[in-house]
Amino acid sequence: MTREHLHPDRLFPVEPAVRQVAREIYQSIQALPIISPHGHTEAKWFAENRPFENPAALFISPDHYVFRMLYSQGIALERLGVKNQYGETEPNPRKIWQLFAGHYQQLFRGTPTRLWIDHALHEVLGISQSLNTDSADQIFDKISEQLCRSDFLPRALFERFGIEVLATTESAVDSLYHHTNLNNSDWKGRVITTFRPDSVTNPEHPDFQNDIQKLAELTGQDTHDWHQYLEALRIRRRFFAESGATATDHGFPTPFTTVLAKEQCQALLSQSLEGTLSAKDAEQFRGHMLVEMARMSEEDGLVMQLHAGSCRNHNLTVFDHFGMDKGCDIPMPVNFVEGLRPLLNEVGNSPSLTLIVFTLDESTYSRELAPLAGHYPAMKLGPPWWFHDSPEGMLRYRQQTTETAGFYNTVGFNDDTRAFLSIPARHDVSRRMDSRFLANLVCEHRMSLDEAMETAQDLTYRLPKEAYKL
Amino acid sequence: MTREHLHPDRLFPVEPAVRQVAREIYQSIQALPIISPHGHTEAKWFAENRPFENPAALFISPDHYVFRMLYSQGIALERLGVKNQYGETEPNPRKIWQLFAGHYQQLFRGTPTRLWIDHALHEVLGISQSLNTDSADQIFDKISEQLCRSDFLPRALFERFGIEVLATTESAVDSLYHHTNLNNSDWKGRVITTFRPDSVTNPEHPDFQNDIQKLAELTGQDTHDWHQYLEALRIRRRFFAESGATATDHGFPTPFTTVLAKEQCQALLSQSLEGTLSAKDAEQFRGHMLVEMARMSEEDGLVMQLHAGSCRNHNLTVFDHFGMDKGCDIPMPVNFVEGLRPLLNEVGNSPSLTLIVFTLDESTYSRELAPLAGHYPAMKLGPPWWFHDSPEGMLRYRQQTTETAGFYNTVGFNDDTRAFLSIPARHDVSRRMDSRFLANLVCEHRMSLDEAMETAQDLTYRLPKEAYKL
Amino acid sequence: MTREHLHPDRLFPVEPAVRQVAREIYQSIQALPIISPHGHTEAKWFAENRPFENPAALFISPDHYVFRMLYSQGIALERLGVKNQYGETEPNPRKIWQLFAGHYQQLFRGTPTRLWIDHALHEVLGISQSLNTDSADQIFDKISEQLCRSDFLPRALFERFGIEVLATTESAVDSLYHHTNLNNSDWKGRVITTFRPDSVTNPEHPDFQNDIQKLAELTGQDTHDWHQYLEALRIRRRFFAESGATATDHGFPTPFTTVLAKEQCQALLSQSLEGTLSAKDAEQFRGHMLVEMARMSEEDGLVMQLHAGSCRNHNLTVFDHFGMDKGCDIPMPVNFVEGLRPLLNEVGNSPSLTLIVFTLDESTYSRELAPLAGHYPAMKLGPPWWFHDSPEGMLRYRQQTTETAGFYNTVGFNDDTRAFLSIPARHDVSRRMDSRFLANLVCEHRMSLDEAMETAQDLTYRLPKEAYKL
Repeated sequence: MTREHLHPDRLFPVEPAVRQVAREIYQSIQALPIISPHGHTEAKWFAENRPFENPAALFISPDHYVFRMLYSQGIALERLGVKNQYGETEPNPRKIWQLFAGHYQQLFRGTPTRLWIDHALHEVLGISQSLNTDSADQIFDKISEQLCRSDFLPRALFERFGIEVLATTESAVDSLYHHTNLNNSDWKGRVITTFRPDSVTNPEHPDFQNDIQKLAELTGQDTHDWHQYLEALRIRRRFFAESGATATDHGFPTPFTTVLAKEQCQALLSQSLEGTLSAKDAEQFRGHMLVEMARMSEEDGLVMQLHAGSCRNHNLTVFDHFGMDKGCDIPMPVNFVEGLRPLLNEVGNSPSLTLIVFTLDESTYSRELAPLAGHYPAMKLGPPWWFHDSPEGMLRYRQQTTETAGFYNTVGFNDDTRAFLSIPARHDVSRRMDSRFLANLVCEHRMSLDEAMETAQDLTYRLPKEAYKL
Repeated sequence: MTREHLHPDRLFPVEPAVRQVAREIYQSIQALPIISPHGHTEAKWFAENRPFENPAALFISPDHYVFRMLYSQGIALERLGVKNQYGETEPNPRKIWQLFAGHYQQLFRGTPTRLWIDHALHEVLGISQSLNTDSADQIFDKISEQLCRSDFLPRALFERFGIEVLATTESAVDSLYHHTNLNNSDWKGRVITTFRPDSVTNPEHPDFQNDIQKLAELTGQDTHDWHQYLEALRIRRRFFAESGATATDHGFPTPFTTVLAKEQCQALLSQSLEGTLSAKDAEQFRGHMLVEMARMSEEDGLVMQLHAGSCRNHNLTVFDHFGMDKGCDIPMPVNFVEGLRPLLNEVGNSPSLTLIVFTLDESTYSRELAPLAGHYPAMKLGPPWWFHDSPEGMLRYRQQTTETAGFYNTVGFNDDTRAFLSIPARHDVSRRMDSRFLANLVCEHRMSLDEAMETAQDLTYRLPKEAYKL
Repeated sequence: MTREHLHPDRLFPVEPAVRQVAREIYQSIQALPIISPHGHTEAKWFAENRPFENPAALFISPDHYVFRMLYSQGIALERLGVKNQYGETEPNPRKIWQLFAGHYQQLFRGTPTRLWIDHALHEVLGISQSLNTDSADQIFDKISEQLCRSDFLPRALFERFGIEVLATTESAVDSLYHHTNLNNSDWKGRVITTFRPDSVTNPEHPDFQNDIQKLAELTGQDTHDWHQYLEALRIRRRFFAESGATATDHGFPTPFTTVLAKEQCQALLSQSLEGTLSAKDAEQFRGHMLVEMARMSEEDGLVMQLHAGSCRNHNLTVFDHFGMDKGCDIPMPVNFVEGLRPLLNEVGNSPSLTLIVFTLDESTYSRELAPLAGHYPAMKLGPPWWFHDSPEGMLRYRQQTTETAGFYNTVGFNDDTRAFLSIPARHDVSRRMDSRFLANLVCEHRMSLDEAMETAQDLTYRLPKEAYKL
């Protein structure tokens, strides 16, 4: 029953006294504007404001949370609307939707995806039925109808969702065409970009050669020369900042950092461009580039985000046939203590730098990240990321970081999503779980209700705005 | 008071509303047949159906969970009925029982062993007293009496326990003498074997040389030749499958896998048999053999189980004096993401393979195993293993795997025990903890009661039967 | 509101039935004497019994838990009373206090520091107001007044706190001047030392060269000679034991141990003293010295404590400007299974050794430490340490160790503090959290109330006294 999943008290603790306090805290933050400082929606949607395509294209084919679970049960990705290397895929969105609906109830039971989709169906699309094989067609039709209506266009939804600011993420060589259009439009919605230079700072990125070339063209710098390469990056950062960006984002396999001499940097860059760099040297290059990015952030004030620890494209068969971001990125153990030391020793004491760190390795919460964030002025702890952006994940995060780092070395919630309709659901889950965590502290007399209310406000609204300079 | 420990609501949450729902879920699965797809009981017990020896031989001397805890308090293993290298041990089972009884209440407080033994004493043996120094003799006598009765013979207990199928584990070179007898008997109980080839696939196994020789004799293959060695394994797998096995089991120190060229395999095999293999090459050999076993499973349909991450015989003094399996196997950190990648990249996308993975390193639940099982079609997540087969261990398992892998990439419970009388207790704990976990989700409005009831049925009965092809 | 934080039911579970049981258990142990077998208060305080200086010197400047959190928000350490390398610091304690008070409510919310300071202010100093910018001055004055009174002198507080025994920690080359004075005084308070030889067993310790020289002078041994060096250590251990010590303490970066040949030891010692030892060899030396210390403990009966896994002085800027122990020690992942194996294989089965192990890497609780402590007779598991000496940290500790190691392979609580006024608060938190954990077990019918009461007594009083031979 969908009704169950959208119970007004969902995710709150059961004990009546705690539930009452959780409700009270939640009610005070429920309607606050959404600050979404990191995510993967597309600026194009808001710039062009054209209708979303169809239910399958909205909920299934682009969402690796969804199709990886179906794939884990042996369902071919092509049947889910994912295109293989020959461009083949199921052409009929209704068929995709039916397939999904048939597995939805059991397979996604107990997962955050289920919470998000139930929320989107019910709250955004007004579907009161439970999604299953029997209801699939009818729900498909209902959604399809609505997607054509003006109040379901991207901008209308943005406003309905109460989004105050939404950050997208673009490659360092992106033209920011849609952002420019948005900036020049008279629409009031604030959609900003984020500077993500991985394809020009990670020599193992599939687009590295290509994008370094583009970088040269866009900036007029000779990117074969170390100094000009850095200057090119500075120029692009400036361009992004002028277009509205307040932050950068860096997604590397590990949080390894190092400080190399300029000659060494030049040598590694040259080898990168010749394609002769070893895997070990690629790690060296990435490690040094994180430090360069931190130095530049200290200069230009862009907040630096580090998302480390994902083993990308673990399943090479899927990668070869379907490409990147197909649900086969698997977390790895990481070491932030050793890894970040060179970077933090250079710029971690700087009041001009904000470095927000994310992990997929929960064992680092209490062991590494909370102690680091509870000491270094520059470092803040990002919210639970990806697999851990879930009710239990959020509880573990607060339980394992708060006692060492407090609340005020964290930065509120990120939805980090490409699924636009899930944004209100994701923020709602976060608000509920923070309310729940705080309510427990209140009822165990570890905090007054007033303090909890203030903290909830800060976590939901003030801290993300401040941390991301929004 | 034993009474306390067998309270009908034991292990359920305290909050009255959740407890009520937990009870309701539990009542719906409490009496389901026991599916025991992995364990270490002996086929001989059921083939010969002779009385169990005495209380000490039943509860203490063979159970490393029990004697390791007593040993940790400085009690010599010989005093607990464990034989040293000279065959010496306490000959009087009553003395062993008294010693155990004197430590039982305090030392095992809060441990699953306590839950299991209390359950066995009360439910199976009808002992209503608490076991301590004062009651030790009387309880010893009561148990001894019963063990002679026909309704306490192995087959009678098997039936009383409601076991639908029980898997034992035998070495690849085992004759399966008792299984054959069982298959030929008119007893209806289903006791099947599991193919465990460690002693012929791990060059560092103490029986390697010996068992490779036996393997040659049993199959008529020249096990010095790589191809014939593989063929010998295929022959034995066929023999096990024909005797009733549906699964294999592999217990290696790490989950490292690799794919080697045939020439390399032949070279490593030759060195293994000459006894000149280095530790590093032994790891290479094991790593490749896991891939070979997966390939064969893909062919012959035997479900593949991988139990990795135990540092066997950590205490060399105990190993030297008492041998293997004496409570000094200690978990190690493991890396499934790198370790399993070669294997999964070769066969992880195959619909014909089922690979069930177990861990002793709980930090891998949310970081590695749930993401892997939530993506690869071939991989399923085994239940909490060994030290983690416990109430808190089960909660952590569900809390840390469900949101990423769901319930339907897991395979229900394994008791994995050599303590026959603990089987009903272990399954009961698992059913209670799953009921508890699900009841919480229901009361937090994350799932309807109907869904929880269905899930509980599936976890208890349907999923283990399906996953293990029973 | 401070009132909230000192609610009589603070830290107890909310569910009324469990809370009632937690209260009952707590009331039975609340007033037991404090056994403080490991910590960093100063013998001088009790030997000289002079008034504590001022509120800032009491609560802020010496407490790295406090100033690291303020530093994480960009507040210079000098403004908090911490002296930089030029001896510069804020000279006015009132200003320091005001700065602290302004951040106290928000920044420390949800942290154990907040619990401890609220407790000290309210229970020890009788401050009923909440500490904030407005009340800062008034509270400063109130505390200052009291510090001059005779009932606030160190010895009076020691007695008021109900401390039965308090262990300090001194370097192996300490004169134990104050302890000797204490031993010769007629004051009844038992303040004992602990033998901490890191500065003469770790070649990378900043004082190594210096202290090895002192060691030679104090013992008349030639510390360049391996045998005499060991003899010197034996002599100092004897001196410490005769002064009252019952334990040693070892704080190394890793728990690596190894057994080297004497020639190798001599070579490493010589290189250490010449200053030519590599980092790798320093680890070898430390690893062997842990084994030597364990051997000596087996001989002389001093309980051996191992605190491993802190990356000291992670922030080199802070280290260069302010020295050691300035809140920038960050936990690292450690491996006890491999690390301790050589040591445990040599002395882990000995009934004459007690080795108490502490970790900052919580992932080792269930994976490594509980299994090791639940097997080796010599090994016991120390309480949650440092960052994990907190309510949630204590819950995780019991939840993750009890099922494998039981309660009786643990050793009760350590406050491990240099903040004397926090001692009653810290023990109170521990007693509350143990009561809470036990109350849950009682209410889930996993233990009777009688058992819980007995266990609570043991954890609070009997086990620390026995484990530390007090």
